[in-house]
Amino acid sequence: MMTEFGLIAAIRELAKELPDHSFEGIGDDCAVLPIGGGEALCYTTDLMVEGIHFLRAKMRPEEVAHKALHVNLSDVAAMGIRPTATLLSVALPREAIQSEWVERFMQGYIAASKQAGVALIGGDTTASLRDITISVTAIGRGPVDHLKHRRDAQCGDMVCVTAPLGGPALGLRDLLAGHSESAAAERHKCPEAELACGEWLGAERAVHAMMDISDGIASDLRHILEASGCDGEVWLEQVPRFEGASCDDALEGGEEYHLLLTVAADNFDEVAARFEAHFGHPLYPIGRIGAKSATPTLRWLENGAPCAGSWQGFRHY
Amino acid sequence: MMTEFGLIAAIRELAKELPDHSFEGIGDDCAVLPIGGGEALCYTTDLMVEGIHFLRAKMRPEEVAHKALHVNLSDVAAMGIRPTATLLSVALPREAIQSEWVERFMQGYIAASKQAGVALIGGDTTASLRDITISVTAIGRGPVDHLKHRRDAQCGDMVCVTAPLGGPALGLRDLLAGHSESAAAERHKCPEAELACGEWLGAERAVHAMMDISDGIASDLRHILEASGCDGEVWLEQVPRFEGASCDDALEGGEEYHLLLTVAADNFDEVAARFEAHFGHPLYPIGRIGAKSATPTLRWLENGAPCAGSWQGFRHY
Repeated sequence: MMTEFGLIAAIRELAKELPDHSFEGIGDDCAVLPIGGGEALCYTTDLMVEGIHFLRAKMRPEEVAHKALHVNLSDVAAMGIRPTATLLSVALPREAIQSEWVERFMQGYIAASKQAGVALIGGDTTASLRDITISVTAIGRGPVDHLKHRRDAQCGDMVCVTAPLGGPALGLRDLLAGHSESAAAERHKCPEAELACGEWLGAERAVHAMMDISDGIASDLRHILEASGCDGEVWLEQVPRFEGASCDDALEGGEEYHLLLTVAADNFDEVAARFEAHFGHPLYPIGRIGAKSATPTLRWLENGAPCAGSWQGFRHY
Repeated sequence: MMTEFGLIAAIRELAKELPDHSFEGIGDDCAVLPIGGGEALCYTTDLMVEGIHFLRAKMRPEEVAHKALHVNLSDVAAMGIRPTATLLSVALPREAIQSEWVERFMQGYIAASKQAGVALIGGDTTASLRDITISVTAIGRGPVDHLKHRRDAQCGDMVCVTAPLGGPALGLRDLLAGHSESAAAERHKCPEAELACGEWLGAERAVHAMMDISDGIASDLRHILEASGCDGEVWLEQVPRFEGASCDDALEGGEEYHLLLTVAADNFDEVAARFEAHFGHPLYPIGRIGAKSATPTLRWLENGAPCAGSWQGFRHY
């Protein structure tokens, strides 16, 4: 069976046959288009499908809208620049069009867009036979030299995250168990893209690689290691956990939408101090980038000793 | 019940509350972003949903891919500039991931992109419970002063189309009746966005308003009249028809993806002559833009006499 990653890899290979028209290829959270004047635009798109990403009975339409927007804005933030606009498409079964669902969804989407400061520049609405599908494309704009790529991690860099992890994984269990108002359930239903952190970290030259945590750091950090051609290690005792989250939740839980980044070791203390002064919470060091390698490997350490665990990250299907 | 147009109108009103970040608002086939140096980018997005826009049993995966791409490229062509890139998202039920469907779909999408000369810069793949949903966002790039808007029709302009109409409507009937290889069925399954015509017409100053024909001219020409604040008339005997198509097919048939445009009357003969010399087929005059009006009205004439018919155009739901 072809997995999501297998399919994406196959598409990337095929896409190389096409003209690039100055777009930088697939591989980061966003595609990038330099537009002159030291500026670039970036582009990302994500689907949200009923029954897979959300249950109509478990999430309010405003929450679905907020999440559909923020999972896309998070990809732009992970590039180190600000999102400026989205396009929104919605396929709706007829009974949802006739209900208040769509009105509340749209009002939620506009409210979340206003809060995030992004335009809504286009979209499509259509009927579907049965399920709701939401597609958002987000556009960002910022200085070309602020853009962060997965391939730029360097030997010795500190690996960091911007927040405690595992909340959304714990929250999904809460939600399915009927505890839809727990703090973790809120994190699952209403992730907040790290727009301010992303822009701030984008302006820092000592920040090398960056991405958002959408499949859990066990999977996402491997993407950075593979793109950069380096080994890496994670210090399990240092990984900050959302209250009540397990180690598995923190390492393999998807849909975090916090940021995973690498920072030049010499600059880490200084950058982390300014980060904490600015945002009021720490930049958490959780590991280190190792040596260049043809077969990049992620090692798990606990208090300095190799750990038997073998986390892989969230698989969508 | 809220219709598609009612929903889109409501969304446009709500979107006005948001910052615009230099994007020009919803209202044309694409949103526009001027980027300096006399250039602009434009953006559009369209969904294709199984059971609504295509039947898996009636269309080959390559045809679904071709159509999903071209309905988006057509919106860029209708702005008068060239598409340069797309983002592609696909939600697939598990059995389709495991089948050859997705492989053939992707190869078809890449082949169609290559033929159209556009990059594939990103996307998303995910599981769905039951149906296939495809979302494409297309990006175009070209001179700002080539962009055509629906609001720019002027009193006295000739109303034109770039090809005989009604083929896709006839083709859908053929397809549902099992005649899937008829010429009209091919037009329905494999629309070709008018990329060369769109770019050529974009460079013509005498071309004022332009859009692609996605809901039938009865609906689409009304959009131009309303945006321009003008009355208009269509000469039924002049509307070119695809062989075998009825008058209703030609006026109300959706999914044409040919171009509907207005041309300054004084320049029409000269532009039409050069168009025909360049493309080897006529630019068809089918009517005229009338006087400015607070309540823009579309009149149907047949050999100069008012016609009793009242066509409205294709309704998606």
